[in-house]
Amino acid sequence: MFDVTFEIEFGDCDPAGIVFYPRFFGWFDATFQRWLRARGTSQAAIAARFGAVGTGLVDVGARFRAPLVPGDTITLSITGVDWDERTFAVRYQGRCDGGGGGRICVEGEETRGLFVRAPDGRLRLVPLAELRAMIEA
Amino acid sequence: MFDVTFEIEFGDCDPAGIVFYPRFFGWFDATFQRWLRARGTSQAAIAARFGAVGTGLVDVGARFRAPLVPGDTITLSITGVDWDERTFAVRYQGRCDGGGGGRICVEGEETRGLFVRAPDGRLRLVPLAELRAMIEA
Amino acid sequence: MFDVTFEIEFGDCDPAGIVFYPRFFGWFDATFQRWLRARGTSQAAIAARFGAVGTGLVDVGARFRAPLVPGDTITLSITGVDWDERTFAVRYQGRCDGGGGGRICVEGEETRGLFVRAPDGRLRLVPLAELRAMIEA
Amino acid sequence: MFDVTFEIEFGDCDPAGIVFYPRFFGWFDATFQRWLRARGTSQAAIAARFGAVGTGLVDVGARFRAPLVPGDTITLSITGVDWDERTFAVRYQGRCDGGGGGRICVEGEETRGLFVRAPDGRLRLVPLAELRAMIEA
Repeated sequence: MFDVTFEIEFGDCDPAGIVFYPRFFGWFDATFQRWLRARGTSQAAIAARFGAVGTGLVDVGARFRAPLVPGDTITLSITGVDWDERTFAVRYQGRCDGGGGGRICVEGEETRGLFVRAPDGRLRLVPLAELRAMIEA
Repeated sequence: MFDVTFEIEFGDCDPAGIVFYPRFFGWFDATFQRWLRARGTSQAAIAARFGAVGTGLVDVGARFRAPLVPGDTITLSITGVDWDERTFAVRYQGRCDGGGGGRICVEGEETRGLFVRAPDGRLRLVPLAELRAMIEA
Repeated sequence: MFDVTFEIEFGDCDPAGIVFYPRFFGWFDATFQRWLRARGTSQAAIAARFGAVGTGLVDVGARFRAPLVPGDTITLSITGVDWDERTFAVRYQGRCDGGGGGRICVEGEETRGLFVRAPDGRLRLVPLAELRAMIEA
Repeated sequence: MFDVTFEIEFGDCDPAGIVFYPRFFGWFDATFQRWLRARGTSQAAIAARFGAVGTGLVDVGARFRAPLVPGDTITLSITGVDWDERTFAVRYQGRCDGGGGGRICVEGEETRGLFVRAPDGRLRLVPLAELRAMIEA
């Protein structure tokens, strides 16, 4: 559906010599942001259009299947996007060593929403129909 | 059970002005590592004792309840540790503005295991009884 | 003059087991931002006051004297601020293991300016007299 | 001499909407590590060969010429490597928007050495002739 390949840098890894796990979420987010740009929009454009803080995270999870070391590559694929009234889930699968031929090293999903600041200063989730139409156009 | 307070730095936040979400997992991990040290051990000591790569992640998840901005603090608490044969789950709760009086901004859990490199070069999870005894001593 | 102590986290360190050097600049910036807050202002307040993108970096340098490992602490001190017409330099010294008694592990300096977007869209450095008065008040 | 292109991710940027400056040093280091691999070696191979902690930083500096925003690319070039008895300097130049045609956004240099742990536990810099021969082979 949508793929991005990242190279594992020395600085992405911790004293155990493998990727420090929060980095995977950095790559999830980078894949999401590039997907928005590939669909003709961006976090900044969404913020401007909706008077929103942006698409933010409600929930996230990941399962780690294999460690990665400096010099490896990971190809992250968005394998599905499920739209709900006020949240949408983005599913990711990561394969080592580039391309679809590699072994799966991570799977995960982000649940995101469109956060707008209400008059009382609090953030609230707004309906997604218009955002969805914009992205799927 | 065990608390660590972190200050939200400008550099922890993204163009939306709020914490870039992978940072929360950096704080989960930092809280875990400090908990190990408070129990008299460390990632390095565990690696040395078990010939292990270290305690690595199998699974992780988090729910985000409120955004944080530069100058806020978050107090992360380990609210429970559940031991299984080859994995253990660490539960976290984060409150804003330090101490137990603040509102909950994040909840999550890491499932970790003790990874040892097998003769064939692959990592496998080993039984945790001895690690558990070491930590609970 | 102004001190902040940071704990070295496992995730701040690279496969060599020591702090990944870009992290030191993250601590320089965090110390600067906390110094602004201690002086009653902040990056956000400066941006709002001056219609500025904020105080940005023109030049930076550091000398590393000793490596740091997980569990160490570093106390960063701002040892001086030198104001010029359109730039100001912030000098840092870092000592290991907290307090002034530790050995110096890093020294560095940031040259910063106040960047404002000109009508042609480019960023330019503006005079600092008012910012200086605001910070030194 | 040697080029690597990086895409500026949303998560590389701070609340001012531009790259958080410590990230540039992460790209310097990543470019260096990839250059080592392109020369047939790696930080891990060097550590194994010399009983070293690895090539570490002695000194670093950078001048920032233009800000970068999400979706930009930066092409970092190693423009020179100067070898001395126990240190070597790596010079970098970064251009925006990929390739040599873009405007310069950053210039900098790292001074690195080969750190070996002495019997007294301290790290010391060792002569570089053999490392240089290995890299230039």
